[in-house]
Amino acid sequence: MKFTTSLRVRYSETDQMGVVYHGNYFAWFEVGRVELMRSLGFSYSEMESMDDCVLPVVEASCRYRRPARYDDLLTLESTVKALRGSILIFSYELRRDGVLLADAETKHVAVNRALQRRRLPERHQAALLQILG
Amino acid sequence: MKFTTSLRVRYSETDQMGVVYHGNYFAWFEVGRVELMRSLGFSYSEMESMDDCVLPVVEASCRYRRPARYDDLLTLESTVKALRGSILIFSYELRRDGVLLADAETKHVAVNRALQRRRLPERHQAALLQILG
Amino acid sequence: MKFTTSLRVRYSETDQMGVVYHGNYFAWFEVGRVELMRSLGFSYSEMESMDDCVLPVVEASCRYRRPARYDDLLTLESTVKALRGSILIFSYELRRDGVLLADAETKHVAVNRALQRRRLPERHQAALLQILG
Amino acid sequence: MKFTTSLRVRYSETDQMGVVYHGNYFAWFEVGRVELMRSLGFSYSEMESMDDCVLPVVEASCRYRRPARYDDLLTLESTVKALRGSILIFSYELRRDGVLLADAETKHVAVNRALQRRRLPERHQAALLQILG
Repeated sequence: MKFTTSLRVRYSETDQMGVVYHGNYFAWFEVGRVELMRSLGFSYSEMESMDDCVLPVVEASCRYRRPARYDDLLTLESTVKALRGSILIFSYELRRDGVLLADAETKHVAVNRALQRRRLPERHQAALLQILG
Repeated sequence: MKFTTSLRVRYSETDQMGVVYHGNYFAWFEVGRVELMRSLGFSYSEMESMDDCVLPVVEASCRYRRPARYDDLLTLESTVKALRGSILIFSYELRRDGVLLADAETKHVAVNRALQRRRLPERHQAALLQILG
Repeated sequence: MKFTTSLRVRYSETDQMGVVYHGNYFAWFEVGRVELMRSLGFSYSEMESMDDCVLPVVEASCRYRRPARYDDLLTLESTVKALRGSILIFSYELRRDGVLLADAETKHVAVNRALQRRRLPERHQAALLQILG
Repeated sequence: MKFTTSLRVRYSETDQMGVVYHGNYFAWFEVGRVELMRSLGFSYSEMESMDDCVLPVVEASCRYRRPARYDDLLTLESTVKALRGSILIFSYELRRDGVLLADAETKHVAVNRALQRRRLPERHQAALLQILG
């Protein structure tokens, strides 16, 4: 199962090459996984503040196939690729008019605010496992 | 008294106009005031973590006179313009080869981590008052 | 006349104070004026690429009244405050649940891609003057 | 052969987790490769403007081993891992006090400003091949 969200490219996200700066895609992928979680009925924000569970990125990779440009209306498909213990992997496909611009993965480890490893809260794990299914 | 720091423009700071995106100057001004504090013998980082004193920006303004460009080596002059109670105003002048590119001001209010207003710690206030002098 | 757009705060826009970094508001204001233009039936992107008219920011200011926080759903009202020759001033009000978080202004000068001053294209000027009304 | 550059973490680079936002590391790696080129006697900026050779990132990956924090003074080692035709791979190691915080790779393809593939200019290729040696 994949979750789709839309993004409009901002001027601030471009660089002097006239395309989006490669580092800025990672903020979009974060939007994708947060909106995926919201579609599952929970808020990443509350998981941080109420459940003391934070999901820092421990690995990130992206292949840039075609440049995204200013004012493009993009669709981002996000999904859960793996969930084992405190490890969570999301994958992403970014498209414009159906054409693949980039695909990416981010690997996260669940920690508390003191950055000590922990398991995902039960209900969040259950929700995310639906996606994997 | 003014404090001078040097900055090299990063590719990520440009936009498709071929110049630095206007919003990115504010990160430079932050570097300027933090380095000014360091030159006075204290660290903004420790003021936050040890003295529970944070300096959020409550007003910011900048006039952009000439564009800064990728790879430019810039000099930033920062100074304290005012310090009254919990209010602190910094001003900045950004130059390339002596030519003024931008001048700016940021107004800050001292608060604790819970964002409640407080006075600056004594020693930090004393140090900053030297600059005003 | 004011134009309203919605924004969801991204994690990447926060800083370690737990609120949105002040410099990041300017990217939102840019979204506000671009969407205002789109609502008037023209695209800033095409004005740049087809009409050789670019609108760099020559002055920007913002008053931060209350912090914006991660995952906040914000409403941004943008309007044209002045339009004289090649000078254009936008103003902005940012709210969460009706409460004012920040108000701001950006002043722009119309230039061509070589950064030489020019007038706004006729039809864009006419459209923007409606807002001023 | 590796090239080392120093970086001071900016406040704007942190997020509300109290560490540097993962997407911001890529701007540092860009600083690393640009400074590596400068140490070899050429400027990436001039390669773009004079030789019509641009190096967009086509793949990027990073492993985040320990968080970088505000005001940290970091050392970044950059090197050329591969150079074949129009393909160029840089690798990076980021450290604080000798401790590895992150290691990364970026893969680039040489193109002209119209984003058509081309070979690196002779002298730049020769310079970069020294590093590989």
